[in-house]
Amino acid sequence: MTLPVETFFLHPEAQGTLQQQIQQMIAQGILSGRFQQGEKLPSTRKLATHLGVSRITVTIAYTELLANDYLTSKGRSGYFVSENAPAPPTFAITPEGQDAVDWTRAIGQKFSGGAAMSKPQDWAKFRYPFIYGQADPTLFDHTNWRLCALQALGQRDFNSLTTDYFDQDDPQLIEFIARHTLPRRGITARPEQILITLGAQNALWLTTQVLLTQRRRAALEDPCYPALRDILSQSRCHVTPVRVDHDGLPPDAIPPDTDVIFTTPSHQCPTNATMPMDRRRALLDRAREMDALIVEDDYEFEMSFLKSPSPALKSLDADGRVIYVGSFSKSLFPGLRLGYLVGSEPFIREARALRASVLRHPPGHIQRTAAYFLSLGHYDALIRRMGTALQERRKVMEEALAAHALRISGRGYYGGSSFWMRAPDHINTDDLARKLQSKGVLIEPGRAFFAGTHQPSNYYRLAYSSIPTSRIREGVDIIAHEMALTV
Amino acid sequence: MTLPVETFFLHPEAQGTLQQQIQQMIAQGILSGRFQQGEKLPSTRKLATHLGVSRITVTIAYTELLANDYLTSKGRSGYFVSENAPAPPTFAITPEGQDAVDWTRAIGQKFSGGAAMSKPQDWAKFRYPFIYGQADPTLFDHTNWRLCALQALGQRDFNSLTTDYFDQDDPQLIEFIARHTLPRRGITARPEQILITLGAQNALWLTTQVLLTQRRRAALEDPCYPALRDILSQSRCHVTPVRVDHDGLPPDAIPPDTDVIFTTPSHQCPTNATMPMDRRRALLDRAREMDALIVEDDYEFEMSFLKSPSPALKSLDADGRVIYVGSFSKSLFPGLRLGYLVGSEPFIREARALRASVLRHPPGHIQRTAAYFLSLGHYDALIRRMGTALQERRKVMEEALAAHALRISGRGYYGGSSFWMRAPDHINTDDLARKLQSKGVLIEPGRAFFAGTHQPSNYYRLAYSSIPTSRIREGVDIIAHEMALTV
Repeated sequence: MTLPVETFFLHPEAQGTLQQQIQQMIAQGILSGRFQQGEKLPSTRKLATHLGVSRITVTIAYTELLANDYLTSKGRSGYFVSENAPAPPTFAITPEGQDAVDWTRAIGQKFSGGAAMSKPQDWAKFRYPFIYGQADPTLFDHTNWRLCALQALGQRDFNSLTTDYFDQDDPQLIEFIARHTLPRRGITARPEQILITLGAQNALWLTTQVLLTQRRRAALEDPCYPALRDILSQSRCHVTPVRVDHDGLPPDAIPPDTDVIFTTPSHQCPTNATMPMDRRRALLDRAREMDALIVEDDYEFEMSFLKSPSPALKSLDADGRVIYVGSFSKSLFPGLRLGYLVGSEPFIREARALRASVLRHPPGHIQRTAAYFLSLGHYDALIRRMGTALQERRKVMEEALAAHALRISGRGYYGGSSFWMRAPDHINTDDLARKLQSKGVLIEPGRAFFAGTHQPSNYYRLAYSSIPTSRIREGVDIIAHEMALTV
Repeated sequence: MTLPVETFFLHPEAQGTLQQQIQQMIAQGILSGRFQQGEKLPSTRKLATHLGVSRITVTIAYTELLANDYLTSKGRSGYFVSENAPAPPTFAITPEGQDAVDWTRAIGQKFSGGAAMSKPQDWAKFRYPFIYGQADPTLFDHTNWRLCALQALGQRDFNSLTTDYFDQDDPQLIEFIARHTLPRRGITARPEQILITLGAQNALWLTTQVLLTQRRRAALEDPCYPALRDILSQSRCHVTPVRVDHDGLPPDAIPPDTDVIFTTPSHQCPTNATMPMDRRRALLDRAREMDALIVEDDYEFEMSFLKSPSPALKSLDADGRVIYVGSFSKSLFPGLRLGYLVGSEPFIREARALRASVLRHPPGHIQRTAAYFLSLGHYDALIRRMGTALQERRKVMEEALAAHALRISGRGYYGGSSFWMRAPDHINTDDLARKLQSKGVLIEPGRAFFAGTHQPSNYYRLAYSSIPTSRIREGVDIIAHEMALTV
């Protein structure tokens, strides 16, 4: 490959003769890793014209670089970065000027340092990945997804999808959600009451920005999805964690001055508790009394394989008080980044305006691909297949856990894709996870799910959404063995 | 199509006998447009099992609905929504409960009502679309984009792309930007100094959130990109508009207590002025004196077809003071939503953490498709093709404007894709645009670009990025004619 001449610039501030400047520019390109061994340089004629200097100047610079073994010449085929040229130390320690900016001062608002959990990027290479929320490639219908993507890339769709939608969504996807997805949760909504988001994360973020300010109060399940706690703490509203029980969030424990209640009624995250119908009604009553809003994160309803799911909290809401968060990320794949919000029109209008300001709209091609995948019935088929697989894995897992008397602290009444586990008090699951990782086992320590600074450290989550059935028993054996070693 | 039985729920709060409830549920489904004419209902047996009621109850409900002509029966093939069933009035006026929520109070922060301009969604159907920033399907290399998308959808890529990246980007795209795209602007950057965003809009939004607070001051070009003004006003920082001249932003006019300066040096938006090198240096000096940061929006550098572009402001920045915003949306297509930020590591770290909280990461498939399209050289070829077409259109347009003595107020020294026009003082270009729209001509009134409340109303923008060369003359004729009629 020839290095494009357009990437060569003489720095207007550079010192020295033109020949030196050219020499320096090329050497720095090599040192910084921009130009790599074996790559061809532009001809002297071309570079001279581009830089507006004489050809002899470039030739002398090249000759100097030849002498220093930065370049080699291969006769008529030109100049190349030498195999012996100094390799950049690593990309990370490129020599560069010290910033004159005091970033501690310059940064107006800090966002880093949240509790959000991290998984090894290469989790799929681990033999026993009991991790949550990652797609299992063996279950996903890759062929049909690809066909739907192709259809959405066809000339006719393409012309409409390349357009800037501004604040609009793909009408086909919206229609499908309104007519087919939401009715399965008992929800009726008009297109103006639905907003497509970049996953459930984005839906929760938009909701928080619209509803909460520094003066307002949110109630949050404890334990809960750690990224939600980060979103709320960034919004600087007052947050009260409310400890969940085996039925999920207890309405009576919500402080009376709460403005917004965040809850996960279908599968409490992470305990998997399903809120019974009576409590759902009690929660709505409680919210009505306090004139509070409820944000219902229905992140995993499709994983109900043990029993038909009960209708969403939103379906019981006659007041417009519930904002519903849905997601396709768990059932399709998380890298897709596709979710949605359902709520009253004044709320959706503000969320839409904010979304337009932040990112305009989720990419059109992805929305259309999902619309095809859903409307051609592939999604339903996928959910059935996943249900069967998860049910089987869950059974194997329950047996394996029972065999070692590992204690399950929460299991979904309707299924789900994980168990919430409680280790003996003396076990620190952060340490346990670290030790297990070196043995090929990934588990999720539970500490990050809890609020406050004195979080219990003996909980952990074991998901069965990404691990093949055949490895479950062996993986659980290793966990139990490692735990037995810890005294 | 048979309506899936899962979409049938009995409302726990419903009144009346079970048979009445079922009847009501179906009728409401039809009235709300959820069940449409000709669609098949679940069999009485299936629905009875699903709802946990006796089959005779369902049969009686169906019979009642038959009598009311909501349903028809086709003998053994079952029950269908009748052709004579009452059609939903329109989707928009579905009967629904009045919200008990006072949304004026419940919404903590309002985001709607910004100045952001809107274009007709069906702009492509207009014969003379002098509108800005939309892709021209005749120039885009649809075939190769499709091939790259297919490659990115292949099994190997797919497995890696379906993963949740958390806060990471596609390493292939980052590498290409670092090694090829940025060097063309004279910029050297390490991967840790680059963040992929959902378009330039998202890059500007993230930057604003990280750098500006209610106590800080931003300087903004006037006129400027209206959505940027919205972003800043939402951040509630102090904003000083600085009037640009024919060389862009004048450094001396920037107030000395400014924290962050927003500028578009390569093609000032909307006047197209290119900032000369001397002024770029003066701007950096001025920022250094004040210890201010500069946000350089290089939104259109690829459109330099009259002359090689000068290196970016960022390339002259030894202090780490410049934050660079790049975008592929103008040159590929705006629906793509793909841009990037380049800046010092402490800044990028915060922007990355904020992005993770807001939306995690731009969808992996789109990042990988772009990486292929760029690295296979299709992008460069596209830019060349666009340059040729734009140059030709610009020439035709200049002639047409000259023929009618329409006054150009700003034209890019390096090219660009639009002219900034000044109509006679008595012309209100909002009115003009409305009148022209009914004649098939789309222009952009200039008012929204200006700050304050007494914006000049006689400017407008004429873009040539989406209109075929053959229609330019005719379109300009209509504009001139309409303007001559306005007294």
